[in-house]
Amino acid sequence: MDYSRMKPYDVRKLIREEKITTPTAGMCAGYAQANLVILPKELAYDFLLFTQRNPKSCPVLEVSDVGDKKLKYLGKDIDITKDIPKYRVYEDGVLTGEYTDIENLWREDFVSFLIGCSFSFESELIEADIPIRHIEENCNVPMFVTNIDCTPAGIFNGKMVVSMRPISYDKIIKSVLVSGEMPKVHGAPVHIGDPSIIGIVDINKPDFGDSVTIKNNEVPVFWPCGVTPQAVVMNVKPKIVITHSPGHMLITDIKNIDLKY
Amino acid sequence: MDYSRMKPYDVRKLIREEKITTPTAGMCAGYAQANLVILPKELAYDFLLFTQRNPKSCPVLEVSDVGDKKLKYLGKDIDITKDIPKYRVYEDGVLTGEYTDIENLWREDFVSFLIGCSFSFESELIEADIPIRHIEENCNVPMFVTNIDCTPAGIFNGKMVVSMRPISYDKIIKSVLVSGEMPKVHGAPVHIGDPSIIGIVDINKPDFGDSVTIKNNEVPVFWPCGVTPQAVVMNVKPKIVITHSPGHMLITDIKNIDLKY
Repeated sequence: MDYSRMKPYDVRKLIREEKITTPTAGMCAGYAQANLVILPKELAYDFLLFTQRNPKSCPVLEVSDVGDKKLKYLGKDIDITKDIPKYRVYEDGVLTGEYTDIENLWREDFVSFLIGCSFSFESELIEADIPIRHIEENCNVPMFVTNIDCTPAGIFNGKMVVSMRPISYDKIIKSVLVSGEMPKVHGAPVHIGDPSIIGIVDINKPDFGDSVTIKNNEVPVFWPCGVTPQAVVMNVKPKIVITHSPGHMLITDIKNIDLKY
Repeated sequence: MDYSRMKPYDVRKLIREEKITTPTAGMCAGYAQANLVILPKELAYDFLLFTQRNPKSCPVLEVSDVGDKKLKYLGKDIDITKDIPKYRVYEDGVLTGEYTDIENLWREDFVSFLIGCSFSFESELIEADIPIRHIEENCNVPMFVTNIDCTPAGIFNGKMVVSMRPISYDKIIKSVLVSGEMPKVHGAPVHIGDPSIIGIVDINKPDFGDSVTIKNNEVPVFWPCGVTPQAVVMNVKPKIVITHSPGHMLITDIKNIDLKY
């Protein structure tokens, strides 16, 4: 089945029925996908404030009501405990399980944060004839922990995580302008060129994801990454936090183009 | 003294010394001014979530730490209890006093919300040769309660308040594009033309502010207004809330041009 041409509602149904348990990259072309962080209410104010103070790495698309499994704005009939292909549960900062359904773990004090994802601006970059290396090489985007401090909020603080895409000199300006049009999904890059400036020691050894080829006429370009909020939450080692499993995102009913306005 | 050419820090000093107690329109040209809402922490999560869900009418520029009179990001050495020319205190939804200093009223559970203000995009419109009628007529901008529902959050809900500026047909498109460049200070209009579409009965009888002349070749253009969050808070009639007095804003160290990015 060609999931790229299917509607989000239909793919979410297959995910809910556990007929899809794979990463969601490329599914439902043109529609935004989202990162998930579920936290108990007692941590939600500090986390929401953290996202307000760090909008580039933590562009919030929706915050659920407390205890509500449904989302109201990102899509029709979403059950956040079932409509993501794979979840990760962390207890005291340690990964304790991966699940395709977390209904049994749900608590009345849980709040779900849905955070914008680079898939949205990547699809715009591709439209603009800017190739994306990790898609060409069929692997995960390389991600790095930088020396850039996030703005702390309450108990949350940490360094910004960035994703890196090698871009040829003749397309760097365009890549800034095209992604800059989408501030709700990370927006413009934070850094272009010399990785050491932002504290990256070896560009071939990412902290998360895979290493990709950087060609002779290319420069590494770094964007704020949605892994930042997860990394910052893990610093705090909360009793429980649930996230999506890397690459296994929520497919929303929101079109990428609507994230421009 | 020509306050328009002075630096924000110097004007805030005069405000702190109560040498300025007037509205701040036109002061410190090029620098952003901000609306203020101070609430007890117990209401802060719902209010922060309300602003997240209603970013056009409630573009948050900074949220203070709980109990902290200082701001960290909007300017140097700001004391939020002294650096606004006039404050209003509401108890159970009723205006109980206007003060030039609220230090004596400060509580350790207070959180300050600073919200973007239309002064920022007005200065850009003027730069773009789009005249602003209420400035020409030296009065307050007309504001209207509309039939547009805000997205509710927790205990907060209500209708969007809009500000209206008459714009000539040949400048309407430009006014949309210029203000649309500044989403952190309300951004593009929500409505152009027939006021009844958004529930406004009489364009000459604003709910807040003053009526202005609409000329024959002009159309009323409506922008989301920073009075919305205040109106929504008042709906809830909290035991205590402190705001700036209309027109008496916080002058920040942030340049309007930096609110574009």
